[in-house]
Formats: sequence, structure tokens, C-alpha cells
Amino acid sequence: MEKSSSLTQETKEYYMQLALAEAKKAQAIGEVPIGAIVVLDGKVIGAGHNLREHDQDATAHAEMFAIRQACQNIESWRLERSQLFVTLEPCPMCSGAMQLARVEEVYFGAYDPKGGAAGSLMKILTDERFNHWSYVEGGILSTACGQLLTDFFRELRKKRKAAKKSPNPL
Amino acid sequence: MEKSSSLTQETKEYYMQLALAEAKKAQAIGEVPIGAIVVLDGKVIGAGHNLREHDQDATAHAEMFAIRQACQNIESWRLERSQLFVTLEPCPMCSGAMQLARVEEVYFGAYDPKGGAAGSLMKILTDERFNHWSYVEGGILSTACGQLLTDFFRELRKKRKAAKKSPNPL
Repeated sequence: MEKSSSLTQETKEYYMQLALAEAKKAQAIGEVPIGAIVVLDGKVIGAGHNLREHDQDATAHAEMFAIRQACQNIESWRLERSQLFVTLEPCPMCSGAMQLARVEEVYFGAYDPKGGAAGSLMKILTDERFNHWSYVEGGILSTACGQLLTDFFRELRKKRKAAKKSPNPL
Repeated sequence: MEKSSSLTQETKEYYMQLALAEAKKAQAIGEVPIGAIVVLDGKVIGAGHNLREHDQDATAHAEMFAIRQACQNIESWRLERSQLFVTLEPCPMCSGAMQLARVEEVYFGAYDPKGGAAGSLMKILTDERFNHWSYVEGGILSTACGQLLTDFFRELRKKRKAAKKSPNPL
């Protein structure tokens, strides 16, 4: 079944800006900058950012926090009619979580050719063998979303190089 | 790269019994009976059971609780060298979580032909395009694991049928 978007380009970009603001919260504490929000009936009902290192939890991805918060907010595990916005193409875990939560529309920013499961390496959210599938659209504000990641990793490499050059005298 | 199991059949069945005990905790509170444990160096470091309805959380799968508890216990998101046991073949979300946590060996009980992502519909854990892949073995105590689910759903249908026959007079 062909699914379609319920949002205008302007609305998509507005919500992606909110996901980007979440990503910047991760960046501010040294985490890989990825952010996500869940929208229902025009209201943000869930938001989250990557916290893998701080939480030392492999499952602490932006989308998981956003989905769990959304479920709590509406007191239901069914996020039917909702839209999810995330700055990077979701991995298999997060795509699977969206499928389980029955998210209606998924919008992501930058593509992840090495690990993306919403189009790049796999298509979990549009696989009709599963009970639920979603409308998926990538590339929303992709330059801004991608730049945030590129800058983060460039900075990280610089810091690591500097640390190597001036080793701790102790 | 071919991966192999580090455990004897007896040990696999011993740990699957522990996962089954977790599944029975879910059954006792009316949740679909699925249980999981994570083992590291012969010790159980994480355990969990399905709590989707109680938590009203789409991500509240047995494996997610087991993985998060394991990460907390060893204070690391890297569950390298660990084994995970789950009574039902994991879905895309849980398979993805195991991949992210770098679980070394994954053992499941019953196959899930309609939703399994560790062999049935997808092979997330052995897909070499990703950074990490695991040894995967299905069918451990599959009769006991499957029977628990079959009995649960039979009971549920019976209750629903009874409820239809004698509707609430209010």
C-alpha cells in the first residue's frame, strides 16, 4: 500500500529544526549529535537525544527516548497517527521501535549509508511482510543535520591528535 | 567470518531455562510470555520480561530490559563476549539492540516466522554490512518456549470468547 505524507515541506523543516535542537543538546555534552522528536496532532509529545556514552547504554539512542516519552505522554504504546523526526537515518533498533510503536510517518535528515535501516542498508519501515509499515522520507534539512555530525567527528579527531602529540607527563 | 558457539548443549539449555523463568513472570501478569537473560563469563548480568501492556511502552521487550540491565551492571554499553538467551526469535528492534551492544552469541527458543529478524524474515545479527555480527542459534528448548506462547494465546481467545457470550449487563 502506498503511503503519503500529511505535512507540507515547511512543516517538515520546522519539526526537523526541533530535532536539530535536540541533537545540539547531545553535542553540548560530547555525545554524537543526533536528536529526535515525536509529533501527534501538531504537538510535540516526545523528544530525545543520543546519550550512549553518558548512560553507558547501547540502546540510549535519540529515537528510543522520544518514542518512550511519547508513549508515556499519551499513556499508550500505540503511536498511530504520529510523525517522528530524527536528524540521522535510523538504525535497525530504532526503525524496529518505530514499527512496533506504529509510527505513521518517519522523516529523517542525513542518510546513513553505513548503518541506516530506513532505506540505505535495509528498509524495515516499508517492509510489507511486517504488521505495520510507515511513510518514510529522508533528506529533510540534510545539510544541517549532516554538518553537525561532520563537525563533531572532525573536532573529535583533532582532540585525539592533540592528545597524542602532548602525552600526559605522568 | 564464520562464528561459533562457546557453549555446550547442556549449558545452552540451562540458560534457556532461566529465560523461560523470566517469560513466566510475564505470563503471571497477563503479558505475552517472553523472557530474556544476558550472560557474561558464566554469570547472569541482565534479565527481563515483556512488559508492553503494563508499561504501555512499545519498546518494553524482554531483550531490551535484559540488555539495559547488563549494561548497567558492567557499567559499559559494550557487551562483548556476552551471550543472550531469549525464548522467542527477536524482532528487528531487539536484534538491532543486540548488534549495537555487540552481544557475541544469541540463542533463541521458538522461531517467529511472522516477525523474526534473526533468521526468519531478516538476518540483522549476521549481516556483515554492519559493524558487528553475532553467532546466532535458534531452536533451544523450542517446544517449551513455543508451548508457553501457544497456551497463552489459547487462554486469551477463550477469555475473549467467554466475555462475548456474557456481556457486561451495565
